[in-house]
Amino acid sequence: MRTFIVVGHKAKTTPEFSLEDIPGTSGRIDILCRCTTAAFVLSHGIRKDVVILLVLCGGLVPKTICLKGSEIMYLNPDERTTAALLKKALELPATPEWSRSTPGIYVRNGGLNELLQQMREIRLLYLREDGTDIRRIDLGNISKEPVFLLGDHLGLISEEEELIKQIEHRVISVGPTSLHADHCIVLINNELDRFGREESA
Amino acid sequence: MRTFIVVGHKAKTTPEFSLEDIPGTSGRIDILCRCTTAAFVLSHGIRKDVVILLVLCGGLVPKTICLKGSEIMYLNPDERTTAALLKKALELPATPEWSRSTPGIYVRNGGLNELLQQMREIRLLYLREDGTDIRRIDLGNISKEPVFLLGDHLGLISEEEELIKQIEHRVISVGPTSLHADHCIVLINNELDRFGREESA
Repeated sequence: MRTFIVVGHKAKTTPEFSLEDIPGTSGRIDILCRCTTAAFVLSHGIRKDVVILLVLCGGLVPKTICLKGSEIMYLNPDERTTAALLKKALELPATPEWSRSTPGIYVRNGGLNELLQQMREIRLLYLREDGTDIRRIDLGNISKEPVFLLGDHLGLISEEEELIKQIEHRVISVGPTSLHADHCIVLINNELDRFGREESA
Repeated sequence: MRTFIVVGHKAKTTPEFSLEDIPGTSGRIDILCRCTTAAFVLSHGIRKDVVILLVLCGGLVPKTICLKGSEIMYLNPDERTTAALLKKALELPATPEWSRSTPGIYVRNGGLNELLQQMREIRLLYLREDGTDIRRIDLGNISKEPVFLLGDHLGLISEEEELIKQIEHRVISVGPTSLHADHCIVLINNELDRFGREESA
């Protein structure tokens, strides 16, 4: 299983945004949509071994939407369809427990703090421009269940970095150029695909 | 300069499609939009050294839209904004000569045949699943002006492959998994970024 966590600092936690202007009305949920498709879509199918956790911080209380490749349905590669799925998830009355919206999509109250509290056993791979190049990391040393954490266009803020410091983690990067989060996810997936192929060869 | 050519086999050559349902009404111009943002957008800016040529074959006569990073304006990372720019370009009466739509965006009649006729001097890098892995290619051997050719969800058809056979080309791939064209472009850009960094080191 590969897990991606993406923090949307201004992403709305309510469904009151327009599918006709996602970037302008949703607090940049468009970024989270592109991360979702980057995480899941293959040329002819969905990556079943991927989970993505979208942390939406643009409300009074943060919410997290969890999408599971093994269960997800109705996901298309275009932005608007994904935004419509997230909107639907935000219509559910959220509690601290996960509630299922559509197949493979769950929502709850709580943000990065709650997620990391529950992931104390994992070794987090935190994407930042100054991190160690993923190609220099021994991927065999990473657990079989890697968890990657990425920020949106605002990066991660210092309070979030403090949370990360409290757990075992490594700061990594995907190359010499500063890229959007969705493009980072494409590059990570490719690196893991290549490693998986080598391992099974 | 990096050039990407993407063939949209069903992509409409007229602006009669809805921005509210790009995949369903435009002949999958959404694919070309995602390729465009994959080619150009950086975390904080646009790749000025990129050109993308979108070949739209879903009309009586094919059209090509050319987007130049050195001149382009109004490009945002979301799909809808890009689709609106392409729609605007398709509103222009096209001729066999390039006409400028918005800054950095040009359109003309003609498809892959015309493009390749005019590119006889270049060595084409044709993306196909069974190609040589880009990481095994000596990128120093590729001209400083690489031209990459990618198909949409339908790949390239046999008539197009015949055109390719008539010019110097190499068949390459980006890894062990079959990916969408926009994700291939992200991976190519990363490979060239890394090579450029090594070269200048």
